[in-house]
Amino acid sequence: MTDLVSVADTGDTAWMLMSTSLVLLMTIPGLALFYGGMVRKKNVLAIMAQSFAVVCLASILWMVAGYSLALTGDNPLIGGFDRLFLHGLTRQGLNGAIPESLYIMFQMTFAIIAPALMTGAFADRMKFSSLLLFMGLWILLVYVPICHWVWATKDGESVGFLHALGVLDFAGGTVVHINAGVAGLVTALVLRPRRGWGTDNMAPHNLTLSLMGAAMLWVGWFGFNAGSASGANGLAAMAMLTTQISAAAAALSWMAIEWKLRGKPSVLGIISGAVGGLVGITPAAGFVDPMGALWIGLISGAVCYWGATALKHRFNYDDSLDAFGVHGVGGIAGAILTGIFAVEAVGGTPGLLEGNWMLPLLQAFGVLVTIVYTAGVSLLLLTIIDKTIGLRVKPDDEREGLDIALHGETVT
Amino acid sequence: MTDLVSVADTGDTAWMLMSTSLVLLMTIPGLALFYGGMVRKKNVLAIMAQSFAVVCLASILWMVAGYSLALTGDNPLIGGFDRLFLHGLTRQGLNGAIPESLYIMFQMTFAIIAPALMTGAFADRMKFSSLLLFMGLWILLVYVPICHWVWATKDGESVGFLHALGVLDFAGGTVVHINAGVAGLVTALVLRPRRGWGTDNMAPHNLTLSLMGAAMLWVGWFGFNAGSASGANGLAAMAMLTTQISAAAAALSWMAIEWKLRGKPSVLGIISGAVGGLVGITPAAGFVDPMGALWIGLISGAVCYWGATALKHRFNYDDSLDAFGVHGVGGIAGAILTGIFAVEAVGGTPGLLEGNWMLPLLQAFGVLVTIVYTAGVSLLLLTIIDKTIGLRVKPDDEREGLDIALHGETVT
Amino acid sequence: MTDLVSVADTGDTAWMLMSTSLVLLMTIPGLALFYGGMVRKKNVLAIMAQSFAVVCLASILWMVAGYSLALTGDNPLIGGFDRLFLHGLTRQGLNGAIPESLYIMFQMTFAIIAPALMTGAFADRMKFSSLLLFMGLWILLVYVPICHWVWATKDGESVGFLHALGVLDFAGGTVVHINAGVAGLVTALVLRPRRGWGTDNMAPHNLTLSLMGAAMLWVGWFGFNAGSASGANGLAAMAMLTTQISAAAAALSWMAIEWKLRGKPSVLGIISGAVGGLVGITPAAGFVDPMGALWIGLISGAVCYWGATALKHRFNYDDSLDAFGVHGVGGIAGAILTGIFAVEAVGGTPGLLEGNWMLPLLQAFGVLVTIVYTAGVSLLLLTIIDKTIGLRVKPDDEREGLDIALHGETVT
Repeated sequence: MTDLVSVADTGDTAWMLMSTSLVLLMTIPGLALFYGGMVRKKNVLAIMAQSFAVVCLASILWMVAGYSLALTGDNPLIGGFDRLFLHGLTRQGLNGAIPESLYIMFQMTFAIIAPALMTGAFADRMKFSSLLLFMGLWILLVYVPICHWVWATKDGESVGFLHALGVLDFAGGTVVHINAGVAGLVTALVLRPRRGWGTDNMAPHNLTLSLMGAAMLWVGWFGFNAGSASGANGLAAMAMLTTQISAAAAALSWMAIEWKLRGKPSVLGIISGAVGGLVGITPAAGFVDPMGALWIGLISGAVCYWGATALKHRFNYDDSLDAFGVHGVGGIAGAILTGIFAVEAVGGTPGLLEGNWMLPLLQAFGVLVTIVYTAGVSLLLLTIIDKTIGLRVKPDDEREGLDIALHGETVT
Repeated sequence: MTDLVSVADTGDTAWMLMSTSLVLLMTIPGLALFYGGMVRKKNVLAIMAQSFAVVCLASILWMVAGYSLALTGDNPLIGGFDRLFLHGLTRQGLNGAIPESLYIMFQMTFAIIAPALMTGAFADRMKFSSLLLFMGLWILLVYVPICHWVWATKDGESVGFLHALGVLDFAGGTVVHINAGVAGLVTALVLRPRRGWGTDNMAPHNLTLSLMGAAMLWVGWFGFNAGSASGANGLAAMAMLTTQISAAAAALSWMAIEWKLRGKPSVLGIISGAVGGLVGITPAAGFVDPMGALWIGLISGAVCYWGATALKHRFNYDDSLDAFGVHGVGGIAGAILTGIFAVEAVGGTPGLLEGNWMLPLLQAFGVLVTIVYTAGVSLLLLTIIDKTIGLRVKPDDEREGLDIALHGETVT
Repeated sequence: MTDLVSVADTGDTAWMLMSTSLVLLMTIPGLALFYGGMVRKKNVLAIMAQSFAVVCLASILWMVAGYSLALTGDNPLIGGFDRLFLHGLTRQGLNGAIPESLYIMFQMTFAIIAPALMTGAFADRMKFSSLLLFMGLWILLVYVPICHWVWATKDGESVGFLHALGVLDFAGGTVVHINAGVAGLVTALVLRPRRGWGTDNMAPHNLTLSLMGAAMLWVGWFGFNAGSASGANGLAAMAMLTTQISAAAAALSWMAIEWKLRGKPSVLGIISGAVGGLVGITPAAGFVDPMGALWIGLISGAVCYWGATALKHRFNYDDSLDAFGVHGVGGIAGAILTGIFAVEAVGGTPGLLEGNWMLPLLQAFGVLVTIVYTAGVSLLLLTIIDKTIGLRVKPDDEREGLDIALHGETVT
């Protein structure tokens, strides 16, 4: 038996093994901590459990059908059935210069984090069973097709229809952040606000957890953004650099605006800004240069500040932990800004500033398609679940806190 | 001076540098957090200090004698003295395609985590000095020989007698988990239960720490399991994928069983299930395919649930944080299941399902030898220490909590 | 367009991508947690915010001017202007065997952690605005030149004057630890002690955070020390091994001394010892062998214990979280010990024990130059800021706690 794996590049493989690990480090503990610190103490275990359980559910669904339907075949709208239950996968199989098993794992991490980050929009009020059911359906019916449209290729040729049109999404701005942010907003609207919203004190109970989580998200994000270069090369390094610059710039930009407008730079603001900058650079990471990243960071920090404050207050919805405000709004901004700041010498495609006025329009089209699809299907799924098993916890459970009510545990 | 390191593969070396780092990330903060959150608040610093100090002790002992006695020489029962104090190690020396210094580091991580995870079985009642003494002796007299039996090779030929027989242990199911789990059980039995066990409330004081710890264990486990491929290749990638699937499946399986039997899915259960799935896949990670991993995960979750509930209650021992229930029981299950689900095309050895009925028997033999040896020698060591300097803290110290009593510190 | 990146080694690039990520993992969450747990509860968010915000500020300054001034050009005292705003950087540009963009990122991590670790010396009493201003100036006027003196090279030839003299600093003992430790001490002296120092209880409020932080620092340190080999090779592996040995030995050495002298081994002591051992080995990591690392660890643990206790009490300064006691004192010890224990076969330079009596003198000279420069310029900067916008928070703010007073938030 000739081991075809010898064809794989060990350096590229090493980096993809690591970037996958980095992303899971950010997804599993990072996101759980980020959100866990922001809720009230009586709900901290519940929201962390949601992240953790969704990670498990998404992993199994990706193995069962998600990967096959998202990233195989040659249909522009949906993938094939060849890899259901990862049937036929061998340790020798390759995807480009890395093992196919590793490609499956790396892509799995995106399918994991999208539903997990969505939970921030509707914290503290959804039944755990309904949440798992909704997430499972959402992964298969919303995430998988959008992933296919934007990222599916075969032998280097475009397969997904948005990819074929030239929509750029380096590391999931559209597939992950807009997609999950908008679905989160829809869920928050369907569920209606938390009891006591606007009157009770709902300040974050422990921002040390959130800061720690944000920091882990930051580092883990290198896995997403530099990992999306699919190898250990100059593009990965450039994506890491642009990611760092954007996150730092956005944290400073949010901090400066809040300091100016509200008199004090909050810790919640600094870390939310950093996450906003990470979201903003996600679609652009391998398409822009450091100066572009600086602008994207500065703008993302400002736009996400607006999304988490003025916009939310204007329309009066309870996006509890600003999953829409940061991921949805920051994702939309990032997708458009990619169309503006893309540099041909970095990622092969020129943007508006290099005279390509088509790219921002294409990007806006990709955004629009994603918003319409995710909002529509999510609303349908939520309505069905609401009419059958119900979406919202009982008022007493919400008052008591989900930790005790749903999981029988509490933090002392 | 010709730099022979140029012979090393940089990609393989990069991945082994990283997998070593990942394992230490899981071992040092991960395990400390996982256990720290499960004890009562008055003992949290003590158990975290145990993990941390044991890591330090094991590192030095590995350098002084452990590596040499475990992994050099050609005797089937014990290694040689050539590398005492790592004498003669050069930066140019190789072990296969990676530097020998890196092989020493990677193997060190297994020697570190085995005693550290054992501490969960007998939390809250052992003297710190006795614990360090016991751990030091256990590493040299129990861990080192078993490691030699299962893993020692020379120039690609089997050296250790269990390895020569064909016992499979990809990443430490026998060497680490059964070994430490059983020694932990013996220690818990010798020490007798915590004061107030069965009457006082001993619920975990802060499961946010434990969830964070479990999540870090999960990611760090990729270091163990995918790192055990010894390079950045298709086998490493497959091991990462099987690890992810098993952990996720076991978390869902424990969750489902507990939800069904007790009415609520506890956070402690979800994370314990994930760890159980990681333990179960450890010996199998590079020998099975994704479907095998799914079965191993589902079974491990159920078996570890039984180990941490029914089994413990039936025999009425105080395995305080279920180190035996999860690592011992899960390790035994995983070792046997490796014999059933091994796939020749993945790891080179067929299992029962491919007609090799010998493999499960061999695996059971490896399990048996390990249990008898670790239980026997551990009991001997504990008895000697008990008769001389004593094992257990004073009743007043236990009542006050080990944080104040042994370390003079407290969490406010 | 020929993609010159194909010249880069993918394995080396993979490891440098990872070591950069590891360092940021230690810097952003690790250091914030380490310090966060040591302060009083009313100041925990403030000190974590300082770490986080300084990371952002340093990242941007490094992009704007720091990298260009520190690591380009051929002047022995200061770098050039070619890379202001990273102008002219391409994804194809190389630095040795890795992309230049990656070299920039890796070097950025050192510029980030130096100011962040300094904050431990003067916790709980500095205005956030003044802190950011001071840090920004310090990075450009102190860190950047010292980095240039010690590390700047061009085409393999020495550029910086200390480098040209033969001063050894493998991973930042002088550039980062002495530099920041001494600047921290100066700041602590200028700011004067915390209100109530010596009378109020200022015990660490939550050492679970600090232990977690120390553990993350430990693992992240592999990024600094093994990453400083600039590739995935035998030198990186040796540096990882010496780092592990030194950290473990120093933790045990501090623990043993404290246990003997004070009757109990504190958790704060064990983790501070580990950090002391990491600091001590930093300049030596790629120049010594495992036995040298063992000695450096044992000595660093003892010396840092002295720095954090007897020395501080003798001169009666409020180095609040022992940033000088551990990083300054440990850094000085490590620099000198590098001169003693360097082994030609490991790093190419023999030390005192191999008959090269010049090396310890050279090392001492490097230490002296760094101390004088950083102390002088830091004092000047602090004096200017103190006379203009002021350095210290208002007494009421200090009493209330910086979390509420400066950031408007609190941990419940």
